[in-house]
Amino acid sequence: MKIAIPKERRPNETRVAASPETVKKLVALGCDVFVEKGAGAAASFTDTAYKDAGATIGKDATTTYKDAKAVLKVLKPIAGGKGDELKAMPKGTVVVSIADPYRSEKELDAYAKAGLTVFAMDFVPRITRAQSMDVLSSQSNLAGYKSVLDGAAVFNRAFPMMMTAAGTVAPAKVFVMGAGVAGLQAIATARRLGAVVSATDVRPASKEQVESLGAKFVAVEDDEFKQAETAGGYAKEMSDAYKAKQAALIAETIAKVDMVITTALIPGRPAPVLVTAEMVKSMKPGSVIVDLAVETGGNCELSVAGKVVEKDGVSIVGYHNVPGRLATDASSLYAKNVVNFFELMFDKEAKDLKIDWDDEIIKGTCVTHEGSIVHPALAHAEKKT
Amino acid sequence: MKIAIPKERRPNETRVAASPETVKKLVALGCDVFVEKGAGAAASFTDTAYKDAGATIGKDATTTYKDAKAVLKVLKPIAGGKGDELKAMPKGTVVVSIADPYRSEKELDAYAKAGLTVFAMDFVPRITRAQSMDVLSSQSNLAGYKSVLDGAAVFNRAFPMMMTAAGTVAPAKVFVMGAGVAGLQAIATARRLGAVVSATDVRPASKEQVESLGAKFVAVEDDEFKQAETAGGYAKEMSDAYKAKQAALIAETIAKVDMVITTALIPGRPAPVLVTAEMVKSMKPGSVIVDLAVETGGNCELSVAGKVVEKDGVSIVGYHNVPGRLATDASSLYAKNVVNFFELMFDKEAKDLKIDWDDEIIKGTCVTHEGSIVHPALAHAEKKT
Repeated sequence: MKIAIPKERRPNETRVAASPETVKKLVALGCDVFVEKGAGAAASFTDTAYKDAGATIGKDATTTYKDAKAVLKVLKPIAGGKGDELKAMPKGTVVVSIADPYRSEKELDAYAKAGLTVFAMDFVPRITRAQSMDVLSSQSNLAGYKSVLDGAAVFNRAFPMMMTAAGTVAPAKVFVMGAGVAGLQAIATARRLGAVVSATDVRPASKEQVESLGAKFVAVEDDEFKQAETAGGYAKEMSDAYKAKQAALIAETIAKVDMVITTALIPGRPAPVLVTAEMVKSMKPGSVIVDLAVETGGNCELSVAGKVVEKDGVSIVGYHNVPGRLATDASSLYAKNVVNFFELMFDKEAKDLKIDWDDEIIKGTCVTHEGSIVHPALAHAEKKT
Repeated sequence: MKIAIPKERRPNETRVAASPETVKKLVALGCDVFVEKGAGAAASFTDTAYKDAGATIGKDATTTYKDAKAVLKVLKPIAGGKGDELKAMPKGTVVVSIADPYRSEKELDAYAKAGLTVFAMDFVPRITRAQSMDVLSSQSNLAGYKSVLDGAAVFNRAFPMMMTAAGTVAPAKVFVMGAGVAGLQAIATARRLGAVVSATDVRPASKEQVESLGAKFVAVEDDEFKQAETAGGYAKEMSDAYKAKQAALIAETIAKVDMVITTALIPGRPAPVLVTAEMVKSMKPGSVIVDLAVETGGNCELSVAGKVVEKDGVSIVGYHNVPGRLATDASSLYAKNVVNFFELMFDKEAKDLKIDWDDEIIKGTCVTHEGSIVHPALAHAEKKT
C-alpha cells in the first residue's frame, strides 16, 4: 500500500511527518512511501536522504497523494479555498495529523463530507501503551527547551553567575508558570544555563517534581496547600481565600524576576491569563516574558502571536509554533510518534491497513469516519451524525 | 571635575560606558557625572536609574560634553563628517574608549590634531594589576557565552540528549576553534546546555584548560605536540608536516559536528581563515557556524558581517558586536573596567585628574597626547611626532 508524506502548507509550519529514519521503517514494513519534493527542507531532511531511505520523491502534491491509502501529516489538511488539500484525497483515505479537533468544527465537517477517516494525534489517550505516540508530550518537551533559548536570545544579560576580574555578574532569575511537560523542560533548561529558577503550578502535587529539578516551588504553603499536595495528580479546587493569597505571592514573584516563562494550556479552551498588564509594568526594565500559550489567546495579556513586542521596557516573546522552531528534532519525534501509531492499524502479514475499531487508542483518536464526525468528545458530533 | 558619559553614536553599538552602579562610584569620588539622555536605553539602564545614582541627565550631546574634563565612552569618538564627536571636546579633554588603534590611523591623527588625550582600553596591558581593567577579557567572555546562544537560536535541534517515550534525541556536537577567553566560555556554555563539545587551539598548552571544562581537545598528539604542550603559554611554530596532519584532522572534525564556533583573533591583523568554503560543504545540512571574528574579516570564508547566511544547508552566523547583544551585562562590566582605570588617574584628595605618565598602564594605553600620536606600538606614531 502507498503512504503519502506531503509538504506542509499551513503558514509557520516547518515540520514534516516523516524523517529518513521513519521512512526506512515504513519501507521495511512493506509500504510504498512517497515523500513530496522539498517536504523536509525546513527540517534539514533532504530529498536525497529520503530517497536513500527508500522513499519515492513525488514531484508535486498530486503525484504524492495519487492512490495513497494513508496520508501522514503534521497539521490537519486545509479544507477548501487556496491550498485545499482535500480534493487530492479520495473517499476512504486515512489521514493522520495534529487535527486540533476542538477548534476545527468547520474542517471536521469538510473531512466528514469528503469521506476521510481522520485521526487526531493530539487526541492520543494518556495511557502507558500510547506513550510512544504522545505528540503533545514530544512537542511540548521541545517547546519548553526552546522557550528558554528564545527568552535568552532577547535577554540583555547572561544566565549564569560569572565571576570575572571586573566583578561578578549575578545569575538570571527565571520563573516558570505551569509545570507540565513544557514547564518542566523549561525549568531544566534554565537551570542548565545557570539561572536561579522558581516555578509554580495549580497542582500542589507538582511541587515535588519542580524541586527535583533544583527549582523553588512558589506557593502559599498553608494547611490547605499541604492537604492538596498529598491528594495526588490533578488540580483540586482551592478556596477563594487561598487563591487570593497565592495570587498576591505570584504578583510579588513576577516583580522580582528577570524572566517569566508561561506554559499554561487548557485543552479545547482559551489559555488562562496569568500575567496581567499591571504585572508586566511591575517588572524591571530589560525583563523578558516568553508566552508559550500565545496561539490559544496567551497567558500574558500583552503578548502578540508571531511577534516579540516591548512594553514598559519588558520584551514579550510570542512566537508561533515553538516546537517547529526546532524543526529537525520536532519532526523526528513527531514522525516516530506517527509511525508507532500507524503500526497499530497496519497488518504486517497482509501488508495493508487493518483497523481495530475497538482499540482504545483508535477510538480515542478517530474524529471522522464514513461521512460522520465520530468522536464522542466533540460536542458538535451529535448534531451531524 | 565633570565627567561626561555620552550616548554611543556608532552603528550597532548598544553598550554604554557607565552603569548606575559606576555612576554612584564616580559621584562618591567627588565627580560631577553627566549622562546623556537615553545613553543607557539599549542596555536597559533608564535615565531615572542614573539620576537616582547621582548623575545629571544631559539633554543632548552639547550639554553633556560642555566643560567635561573626562569623557568615558565605549567606542572611539567619530572624527569629522556626520555625527562628529570631536568638536564638542576642547583641547586637553581626556577620552577613554575602546579605540581599536591598529585600525584607526585616520581617527588617531584627528584626535592628536584636536589635542585630545586619548586612552585605549583595548591596550590595557595583560598584567595582574590591570586585570580589573581588561575589557578584552570582560567582553570576550560575554561574546563566548552569546555565541553559543546565537548558534542555538538558528539550530533546528536541541543541545542536550533527551530520552523521551518516542525515542532518544542525540546531543548536539559542538566544536570550538580557539580556546582563549571567548572560546573557553563558549565551551563552558555549550557543555552547560548539554552538548558534546570538542575544541582546538594553536597552543598545545591549552589542552589542559579545554579538558578541564569537559571538552575533548582536537590535536594530532605526536611527539612534536607533546613537547610543545609542556613548553607553556604561547604558540610555538610547529613543523609543516605537523601542520598538514593537524589540518586534515580539523577538516575531518568539522565534517562530523553539528556546530562550529570560531573565536580566533590576531590583534591588529585580519582574522585567520579556519573554515573554508569546502569545509562548509562537507558539513551536514542543518549545521551551524558562528563566526566571532567576522568583524575583522572572519574565521569562516563565507561569513558576512551583520548577517546570518545559508550556504549548502549550513547557517553561518556573523553578528556585529556580539558582547553588545548582551548590552546590560556588557555595559556593566565595561563600566567597571573603565572606573577601575579612571581611578588610576584621579587624585582623591584634590578631586581632580592627576596622571602618572610613568605608570605602565597609563603608558600602555595612551595613544594621543598634546597633539601627537604617542604609543610606541603604532607604526605611524613616529611619522607624526
